[in-house]
Amino acid sequence: MDLYFAPLACSMATRIAFYEAGVAANFIQVDQRAKRAADGMDFYTLNPMGQVPVLRTDDGDLLTENPAILLYVADRHPGSGLAPAAGIERYRLLQWLNFITSELHKVVFVPLLEQASPEGAKTYAKDKAGRRLTVLDEHLVDRDYLLDGFTIGDAYLITVLNWARVTRVVDAGQYPHIAAYIERCLARPAVARAIDEEMALYKEEVARQRAA
Amino acid sequence: MDLYFAPLACSMATRIAFYEAGVAANFIQVDQRAKRAADGMDFYTLNPMGQVPVLRTDDGDLLTENPAILLYVADRHPGSGLAPAAGIERYRLLQWLNFITSELHKVVFVPLLEQASPEGAKTYAKDKAGRRLTVLDEHLVDRDYLLDGFTIGDAYLITVLNWARVTRVVDAGQYPHIAAYIERCLARPAVARAIDEEMALYKEEVARQRAA
Repeated sequence: MDLYFAPLACSMATRIAFYEAGVAANFIQVDQRAKRAADGMDFYTLNPMGQVPVLRTDDGDLLTENPAILLYVADRHPGSGLAPAAGIERYRLLQWLNFITSELHKVVFVPLLEQASPEGAKTYAKDKAGRRLTVLDEHLVDRDYLLDGFTIGDAYLITVLNWARVTRVVDAGQYPHIAAYIERCLARPAVARAIDEEMALYKEEVARQRAA
Repeated sequence: MDLYFAPLACSMATRIAFYEAGVAANFIQVDQRAKRAADGMDFYTLNPMGQVPVLRTDDGDLLTENPAILLYVADRHPGSGLAPAAGIERYRLLQWLNFITSELHKVVFVPLLEQASPEGAKTYAKDKAGRRLTVLDEHLVDRDYLLDGFTIGDAYLITVLNWARVTRVVDAGQYPHIAAYIERCLARPAVARAIDEEMALYKEEVARQRAA
C-alpha cells in the first residue's frame, strides 16, 4: 500500500497504524505548498481536496479521509487489534473517530494551526475547545485508551493532540487525564518512532522552504 | 430504537434512514436551548457534548456522532441497501460520510448557521465552501447518488444541503449538479416525509420559543 503523507499532518495516524500492526508500507511525501508528491504526481489528481492522507490500496484503489483509511488498514490486519471487527465496540470506535475528525481536528485545531485564518475564526475555535477537551478528559479519567486497548482511534487522537504543542490549547493542569494519555501514547514504540521520523522530515521541509 | 433528535438538525439523516429502510423507531425531541429531552432526560447525561443525534439501541447502548449512528442503523437492516456490507464500497461510503461530517457540516455550515459565531468565523467558512462544493459538484456530474444507489451518505448529505436554503451558500447556477441532486433526493418519499414532518416540528418549536 502507498500512503501519501505530509510530515506531522493527520496522515501520521496511518503511519502509526502501520507501525503498530508491524506492516510494511510505502510512504510518499507530499509537498503541500506545491501540491506535488515525491513520486511526481500532481496531488490534486489523487485528491481533489488537495489534502493528505491518500491511500493507494494493493488493488490500486485510491481512498481519502483519515477515518476511512485508518479503518481500511486496520481491517486488513485483524490480528493487530487496531479496530474491533463487529459489535457495539466497532460503532464506539466509529463514534470516537468522528469526534476526533469533526470536533477536534476540524473545529478546534485547523483554524488555530492555519496561519491565514482570521482572528474571529481562531477565537471561535478557542471558544469551542473547552467543552470538547473536557469531554475527552472526563472520558480518560479511568481509561488508558479510548476503548479497551490501543486502536486507530488513539492513533488519530495522539496525532491531533501532538499539534497541541504548537497551538497550546491543551493545558496539562486543566486537562490532567489528557496530559497523562499523551505521555502514555508517546511511550509506545510505534508512536514514538512515527513522531521522531516525521519531526525530522518536517524540519528538513522547513529548511528547504527557507532556502528556496 | 430511540432516536433523540432536534427538528431539521443533522439527526434528520437517521430519520431518513429509518424511513428508507421501512423500520419503526421511537423519535424523542430534544429542546436544544434547555438541553432537555421530551422524555424528561437532562440531555447532557445522554451526550456530554449536548448534541443530537443520540441513539439508544435495543440493547440499551447509547451511541453519539451521526456517521456512527447511521452505520449502526444501516447495518441492522442489511436488506435496505443503505450501506455496502464490505469491500471497497464500504470504505468509499466511510470516506463520503467523513467528508460530509468534517468538511461540509463542521467546516462550512456550523459557523454559518450559528447566530453567535463571529464574523471572521463566517468569512472563513465561506472561503472554505468553494472547493468543497466544487469537489462535490464534480463528483455528481455523472452520478445520481454518492455511490451507486441511495445510501446513508445521501441521507446525511441531503440533510446538510437542506441547510443551504438558510445559509444561501449553494448557488444553483454555480453548482448545477448539486442542485439537481437536491431535487432528486427531495423526490424520494422517505426524504420528503422526513423534511415535511421536521419542518412542522421546527415551526412549532419556533412558535413556542417566541411565546415564551
